[in-house]
Amino acid sequence: MINHLYNELDLHFSEMVNIRRYLHMHPELSFQEVMTAKYIADYYKNLGIDVRENVGGNGVVATIKGASPGLTVALRADFDALPIQDEKEVEYKSTVPGVMHACGHDGHTATLLVLAKILFQNREQLKGNIVLIHQHAEEYAPGGALPMIQDGCLDGVDVIFGTHLWATEPVGKIQYRVGPIMAAADRFEINILGKGGHGAQPHKTKDAILIGSQVVTSLQQIVSRKIDPVHSAVVTVGSFMAENAFNIIANSATLIGTARSFDEDVRQQIEYDIEKVVKGTCLMNEADYRYDFFRGYPAVVNHEEETVFLKEVAGKVPGVHEVEESPLQMGGEDFSYYLQHVKGTFFFTGARPFHTEHAYPHHHPKFDIDEKALLVAAKTLCTAVIQYQSNFKQESLAKTN
Amino acid sequence: MINHLYNELDLHFSEMVNIRRYLHMHPELSFQEVMTAKYIADYYKNLGIDVRENVGGNGVVATIKGASPGLTVALRADFDALPIQDEKEVEYKSTVPGVMHACGHDGHTATLLVLAKILFQNREQLKGNIVLIHQHAEEYAPGGALPMIQDGCLDGVDVIFGTHLWATEPVGKIQYRVGPIMAAADRFEINILGKGGHGAQPHKTKDAILIGSQVVTSLQQIVSRKIDPVHSAVVTVGSFMAENAFNIIANSATLIGTARSFDEDVRQQIEYDIEKVVKGTCLMNEADYRYDFFRGYPAVVNHEEETVFLKEVAGKVPGVHEVEESPLQMGGEDFSYYLQHVKGTFFFTGARPFHTEHAYPHHHPKFDIDEKALLVAAKTLCTAVIQYQSNFKQESLAKTN
Amino acid sequence: MINHLYNELDLHFSEMVNIRRYLHMHPELSFQEVMTAKYIADYYKNLGIDVRENVGGNGVVATIKGASPGLTVALRADFDALPIQDEKEVEYKSTVPGVMHACGHDGHTATLLVLAKILFQNREQLKGNIVLIHQHAEEYAPGGALPMIQDGCLDGVDVIFGTHLWATEPVGKIQYRVGPIMAAADRFEINILGKGGHGAQPHKTKDAILIGSQVVTSLQQIVSRKIDPVHSAVVTVGSFMAENAFNIIANSATLIGTARSFDEDVRQQIEYDIEKVVKGTCLMNEADYRYDFFRGYPAVVNHEEETVFLKEVAGKVPGVHEVEESPLQMGGEDFSYYLQHVKGTFFFTGARPFHTEHAYPHHHPKFDIDEKALLVAAKTLCTAVIQYQSNFKQESLAKTN
Amino acid sequence: MINHLYNELDLHFSEMVNIRRYLHMHPELSFQEVMTAKYIADYYKNLGIDVRENVGGNGVVATIKGASPGLTVALRADFDALPIQDEKEVEYKSTVPGVMHACGHDGHTATLLVLAKILFQNREQLKGNIVLIHQHAEEYAPGGALPMIQDGCLDGVDVIFGTHLWATEPVGKIQYRVGPIMAAADRFEINILGKGGHGAQPHKTKDAILIGSQVVTSLQQIVSRKIDPVHSAVVTVGSFMAENAFNIIANSATLIGTARSFDEDVRQQIEYDIEKVVKGTCLMNEADYRYDFFRGYPAVVNHEEETVFLKEVAGKVPGVHEVEESPLQMGGEDFSYYLQHVKGTFFFTGARPFHTEHAYPHHHPKFDIDEKALLVAAKTLCTAVIQYQSNFKQESLAKTN
Repeated sequence: MINHLYNELDLHFSEMVNIRRYLHMHPELSFQEVMTAKYIADYYKNLGIDVRENVGGNGVVATIKGASPGLTVALRADFDALPIQDEKEVEYKSTVPGVMHACGHDGHTATLLVLAKILFQNREQLKGNIVLIHQHAEEYAPGGALPMIQDGCLDGVDVIFGTHLWATEPVGKIQYRVGPIMAAADRFEINILGKGGHGAQPHKTKDAILIGSQVVTSLQQIVSRKIDPVHSAVVTVGSFMAENAFNIIANSATLIGTARSFDEDVRQQIEYDIEKVVKGTCLMNEADYRYDFFRGYPAVVNHEEETVFLKEVAGKVPGVHEVEESPLQMGGEDFSYYLQHVKGTFFFTGARPFHTEHAYPHHHPKFDIDEKALLVAAKTLCTAVIQYQSNFKQESLAKTN
Repeated sequence: MINHLYNELDLHFSEMVNIRRYLHMHPELSFQEVMTAKYIADYYKNLGIDVRENVGGNGVVATIKGASPGLTVALRADFDALPIQDEKEVEYKSTVPGVMHACGHDGHTATLLVLAKILFQNREQLKGNIVLIHQHAEEYAPGGALPMIQDGCLDGVDVIFGTHLWATEPVGKIQYRVGPIMAAADRFEINILGKGGHGAQPHKTKDAILIGSQVVTSLQQIVSRKIDPVHSAVVTVGSFMAENAFNIIANSATLIGTARSFDEDVRQQIEYDIEKVVKGTCLMNEADYRYDFFRGYPAVVNHEEETVFLKEVAGKVPGVHEVEESPLQMGGEDFSYYLQHVKGTFFFTGARPFHTEHAYPHHHPKFDIDEKALLVAAKTLCTAVIQYQSNFKQESLAKTN
Repeated sequence: MINHLYNELDLHFSEMVNIRRYLHMHPELSFQEVMTAKYIADYYKNLGIDVRENVGGNGVVATIKGASPGLTVALRADFDALPIQDEKEVEYKSTVPGVMHACGHDGHTATLLVLAKILFQNREQLKGNIVLIHQHAEEYAPGGALPMIQDGCLDGVDVIFGTHLWATEPVGKIQYRVGPIMAAADRFEINILGKGGHGAQPHKTKDAILIGSQVVTSLQQIVSRKIDPVHSAVVTVGSFMAENAFNIIANSATLIGTARSFDEDVRQQIEYDIEKVVKGTCLMNEADYRYDFFRGYPAVVNHEEETVFLKEVAGKVPGVHEVEESPLQMGGEDFSYYLQHVKGTFFFTGARPFHTEHAYPHHHPKFDIDEKALLVAAKTLCTAVIQYQSNFKQESLAKTN
Repeated sequence: MINHLYNELDLHFSEMVNIRRYLHMHPELSFQEVMTAKYIADYYKNLGIDVRENVGGNGVVATIKGASPGLTVALRADFDALPIQDEKEVEYKSTVPGVMHACGHDGHTATLLVLAKILFQNREQLKGNIVLIHQHAEEYAPGGALPMIQDGCLDGVDVIFGTHLWATEPVGKIQYRVGPIMAAADRFEINILGKGGHGAQPHKTKDAILIGSQVVTSLQQIVSRKIDPVHSAVVTVGSFMAENAFNIIANSATLIGTARSFDEDVRQQIEYDIEKVVKGTCLMNEADYRYDFFRGYPAVVNHEEETVFLKEVAGKVPGVHEVEESPLQMGGEDFSYYLQHVKGTFFFTGARPFHTEHAYPHHHPKFDIDEKALLVAAKTLCTAVIQYQSNFKQESLAKTN
């Protein structure tokens, strides 16, 4: 059966490309993806596939019921775009000024739609159901995954698979990783409340720029000294704002930054240690502060069994030339929430544009992908679904009964 | 004779107040003081006093020729206002939105005009000439003093006296100081040219905010370690600008600040040492930088003989209750340029508003003065002129001949 | 056959314990292990096993020739002790003041001697040779491994296995790790050459304590900013020496520290970046410096195939209850050199004293092990040898021919 | 009369030199000056001058009663030496290994003894009494001045004069200064109590070297930001001690330093701000600390009237070519205590060795003076005594009666 599905996917490759290019030309920002959601829902409706709209916002969930009983496997694709001006010169360039699919979500969506169509056409052979989760708002915390889960998108789901097209790796490569694969991405904001004054009279002031500078300098020791060196962590101040006349001593300064980690303990420690640094520095200067730590997506932590399974089946997919362990990725993803609720794994599908050694990175105004990667992604997800349902049928039924 | 002049000044006190209040209601910004200059020139013209307009810009210079030969004494008053919204509730409040005489230059001008009138009326007793320098643009470097000097305002002048009404000291106090009294006030700008990137990938970047923060921290050691502790110096960073998304590592950062010193060697050393700090920090981080040091006014350095003279005569002026050594003032003044060309001294005349312990400081939106200070200033300047010309007549003539 | 060997090892457990305790009572420091080397060599001589002494120093290498041709497997045990005063109260306490087997090398040696004896007695069943590498001087760089290799201890060896008794993990646990498992451990020394002077005259000096302090502070950003956060690295200054009278400004300061890494690129980058920090800080202060980076042992990097093999066979060894992936260990080991020459793997054998939750760490004056761990180590190494020779025989011979 | 005294002093110059050289050859450390005290007392006894020994320790006080009633003027000379090895090659080189008159106290003593002799011989002309205070232990806090005062050396004294031979200024120059002239010299000690550990495991420690380094760096901002820039202050860490093995993280670090100031408020602020820095830095690192601030001598603050008097009379002394304002000296002196009890002034007498542009500084192993300076010092002190008693007689008597 799987070879039949591969053939069908090959035959529908141009449809995949067409969908991806249509979406690429009509991108919508996170939480504003109304037309994209409608496009997706209409695709399913036209095929006669059960579809639920407005799931947790703009989310769309379709369900394919297999002929035989079995496990319910979910596949997820996100569909929001970014506030970036498309600078590529291609015919499928974004038609919306300042908005662009610069992360490959258009490709994720096209892959999943066409794969769903093929699976639906072969539902007589399916041993279990398939849930197709089209998620809005991955790019912008708090994201779409959590409200979709709260709105039931994982109800009855036994396992979930998801992939991200990865423009820096060649087409034909699949990257898996057991355990943490993408980081928790948090945001923090520090306001130093000093005491301004004349630039020539420092003794009458509490110099907020100096205090902020000491904070930035001392924050370095969180990663260098406070975190176990075998753990990964990042503390970055991305914004330092204290604009005044040149001959004024700053009354206040605002520092905004991001923290990354893979481990909940490390995450908590960073949150705690940042405040320690700010508090100690302010005490030293008799200044006040305000500190907020906003949690973004948690780390994406893949389940071991499903990841090893994916690694093994991926090696047999036509078009996959290499299956390797992914390095840790410090970026964030709200796929993490699905994995907190059901088993599953998230993997990367190489999508580096043809003839390019150094692809434009994700979120770059000239970002693009090799569309052949859509076919690799579709076949890999397809194999995962079919194989997972075949492998686990008996046990699963035993469990449920 | 001097007592007669004191009496005349007393009788004209209300004129002084009226002039000051008129100017207070009609302030003009530095280099834009066209109406104020006309007001001053007209005052002299109406009296029949020789006056030269547009001296080095909006400057006005009047000359009173004494009946007897002698030394030529210059008196200087500045007349520009500041870009500050007047927040006082008084009947003579500024009528120009966002512009205000928040430093007392209105008082300086009123003092000098009325004093000139009295001296002119008594020119038969004067042993030498008097030059009345009404200077524009003291508040905004490069200032009005230098172009007025270049335009000849000091030609033939033997000595110059100037005073600043000082709102933080009580009426009746005169503050003098031999040597440096007000600081050189310079401006510097540092651009850190790092390499931006994703907040989660510091190793691919050169973090301009961290580099800038290290620079601010290390700049502290210029004053603490590099400058002789018996000299005064200030290095202040007033602006730190590096605004980015929270999850971005800053590509660049701009630091703007001021340096203060009283000694040319110290001034040069600060300029040199700031670059050392920037250069070393950038080298450590393999980043680049741009550094500019813009010289503002030099330090006001009073001549010893004239200052001791002023101190002594001030003690005998009616209404002066206390003559004390001024502390060093870290603020700047372009009176410094006059003292680089001729002998003289600059002193402070207490002008603290009545019944106030803590006056609003200069440049504050509620700044005001006790107008009785105008009379003290006028009498002190008057005494200085008369006494200086009396004391030095013979020698001076000997010199000139 | 393997079960027979297990039985033999069980029967010789008390001999293992006796040897371990004898060695524990007679520890010798690195490079001074003359008596221990003789003890080991005599053991082999008494059994009639081929033994070579003074290999690369105090090293001892014995060889057991199997009856059938096959792969040559090396096993390594180190035998030096530490300059620590034994503070345990046990009957086998060290008899040498200030010297102690505080890292378990006595156990390694006892394990290997008895295992060798059993294997020798069963040499008729061996499919290949076994090389027993007793290494001196593991505790003190440059270590004994390198000279032993240079003196031929790996000649003809196809694969090497080694284990470290690990007092912080329970008996019955084996920890493996593919790739890096123990860190490169380097040493660096920084001399800040400032300019001393009177404590009240900082402007005439280059304050070496301040410069050194800035260096320590700035070194933090190597780990926090310069190294890829998914890599592990440590930069520690362990000694800061600048002792002077309280009213003197320091002429010089000496900083000594250690750097840890698992990746050669990271290691080189640390060496490079430390100098950048020192150079930039000295430039800022117009001071000089001397910087030396002394490479210690490289990281222990396990070969994938042999490690997976070890993981799998370990799971079947009687007495092994748990086989898990080891965390990265920031400590160093010169086993790294063997793995640069031949394939193999290094693993940890749990040895936590009975009834203890928190064992004394390695190098502690009260360090001890549960001697039952010797049996686990012996059986695991034994299994690795027998199984490896069984598995790979045909290929190996094919290769050799 | 004064000319007669000058002549007498000229005639006794060789005695002065002999005494100075004898003392130079027989130096004694602070608080151990038994023989020197005896030498001084014997000199007075031989002349029949009233002398009190063991005043507040090794202090010696002689009194000369003038024939006429009048003010009592005290003159002070200190007589202790330093723990320095004399490296000069002169015939009067120190005979005591490791002890040397490297600060000119031998000259102070010789000056005062011979001046006392001459004044005693002319006591019939004296209008008031003269108290000769020979003070021990100036070099070593808490010093000899305070116990001598407590033991009555200033009882009945109206005014005190003292001078320091100053090897960096030429013979013939007198330096005076109204108000502060020498700094308060305090000592502080900071113990950082962190938590040691293995150099590869920073996350389990509180790195005392890093904390200490942050403290040193942050201490810079006391002078740069907390102290009014028109005041002088120094905060120096002279000793940073944390010696460990290279692969250990420091458990503790000890910083020792000195603070200098001229103003009691500044002094208190430094003491307070150092603790703020230490406290904030330790809080940031959750470490503990111990902080002690030991007050040394307060600033020497000259009385205005007496200083102006000294300046004026000094200008008329034969051999004095220049009288100038002294710069602030950051060094300390316990003459400060006398000036807290009675009026007076402390001044510098140039003593630069002949033909030298750059003299060895005080406390240098090759320090020396031009002995002609002793005569200048003697004549200046003599003039001060005689003139002060002449000037103030009437008023003083009026006051006392």
